[in-house]
Amino acid sequence: MAIFKQLFDEATSTFTYLIADEHTRSALLIDPVHEQYERDRALLDELGLSLKYVLETHVHADHITGGGRLRHETDALFIVGKGTGLDCADRLVADGETIEMDSITIQVIATPGHTDGCTSYRWEDRLFTGDTILIDACGRTDFQQGSPERLYQSIQKLLAFADETLIYPAHDYNGKRVSSVGQEKTINPYIAGLNEAAFVAKMRALNLPKPKRIDVAVPANSLCGGADVPRQPGETEAA
Amino acid sequence: MAIFKQLFDEATSTFTYLIADEHTRSALLIDPVHEQYERDRALLDELGLSLKYVLETHVHADHITGGGRLRHETDALFIVGKGTGLDCADRLVADGETIEMDSITIQVIATPGHTDGCTSYRWEDRLFTGDTILIDACGRTDFQQGSPERLYQSIQKLLAFADETLIYPAHDYNGKRVSSVGQEKTINPYIAGLNEAAFVAKMRALNLPKPKRIDVAVPANSLCGGADVPRQPGETEAA
Repeated sequence: MAIFKQLFDEATSTFTYLIADEHTRSALLIDPVHEQYERDRALLDELGLSLKYVLETHVHADHITGGGRLRHETDALFIVGKGTGLDCADRLVADGETIEMDSITIQVIATPGHTDGCTSYRWEDRLFTGDTILIDACGRTDFQQGSPERLYQSIQKLLAFADETLIYPAHDYNGKRVSSVGQEKTINPYIAGLNEAAFVAKMRALNLPKPKRIDVAVPANSLCGGADVPRQPGETEAA
Repeated sequence: MAIFKQLFDEATSTFTYLIADEHTRSALLIDPVHEQYERDRALLDELGLSLKYVLETHVHADHITGGGRLRHETDALFIVGKGTGLDCADRLVADGETIEMDSITIQVIATPGHTDGCTSYRWEDRLFTGDTILIDACGRTDFQQGSPERLYQSIQKLLAFADETLIYPAHDYNGKRVSSVGQEKTINPYIAGLNEAAFVAKMRALNLPKPKRIDVAVPANSLCGGADVPRQPGETEAA
């Protein structure tokens, strides 16, 4: 069985996910948080894992990614959706591509709507949905090229998976940690019983305050975490 | 990857779980419901599966098990916790035993408290908790040899698994389908912040109505589903 960990940053209510091959000890992190760099490194060390990839679900507005420092201090490659257009990334992934890491295969699913470049990742029967589907909620669409129409379509794309498919979001503010496609279809108030027009109207009627960290987080994340050092072809940390 | 399905009986809010080996097509069901026999047989047929085992988490008070009819009409063996003392079972399993079905291994965890014979089953990182842990709740302890003290200890036993361990209960009445050890530790009002004394007091203060079907369900389930035909050694349905 693969290694799977769900980590939580209290300050920003952000989930970070670790997936690793139990034999080769190769690991990837989804949505690490800058302030949790020490925690993440300690966990990798404790489990004897070698970090190969940092996957971002999007350019976050609420926290700075840990990917900048992690790629600087390990050999990890920084991967993000093509829709972000981030020049600083090691790899931009498009819908339908796969990310292979030994026995681990990750399917890339473009899910624009919360932001242009939002990407979900599927590993086996687990969907890492970023801010596209949150438990009983969904990402807002009022900044960073947000679009309720596109988000609606992206949510439908994820709901097309089997009901048992697990949903692991980028955030939860109420102590919830995991859901499933079947659960979200049944009780998510932004999904259950809403057609596109009703969803769009509901999203447009939200009147949300500006995220506290957006003016710091978006510029830093647009540079892949700020501590970004552009790689030369063939260059590694050991070089 | 193994096959995994979560089924729901609306009338009694009962979850039935199907686990199958994708290569050999051997299958087991956890907590089937009598009235859903046709649904379960149709699903097995559709997926080309052969039912080997019916696992019961306990002698249910709210529905009659589908295990009676399933074992009568297939070659499936009926398995239940030793604490139930059910003579009609094909196998009584005790804490720490495993149930092997090709590539599938199920760990038996005795979790008395809701009833004497309550058993949880672990498959990989998934716990099938019956009525021991429900999502944001737990099973009642005011009938069928229920004991809040024993239930408290059983819940602790399940919470000792890693936070990422998934919890699949026998019921949910509010549309929820899956949780995790970490989530239940954090927000289940029968778990979070309660020591044994507080839990016992809370359970004792509940004043719940008698379950509607208990007078029918418990006698039938005590006969492994009513349609039970005791097997002779070596006898199968084909004989």
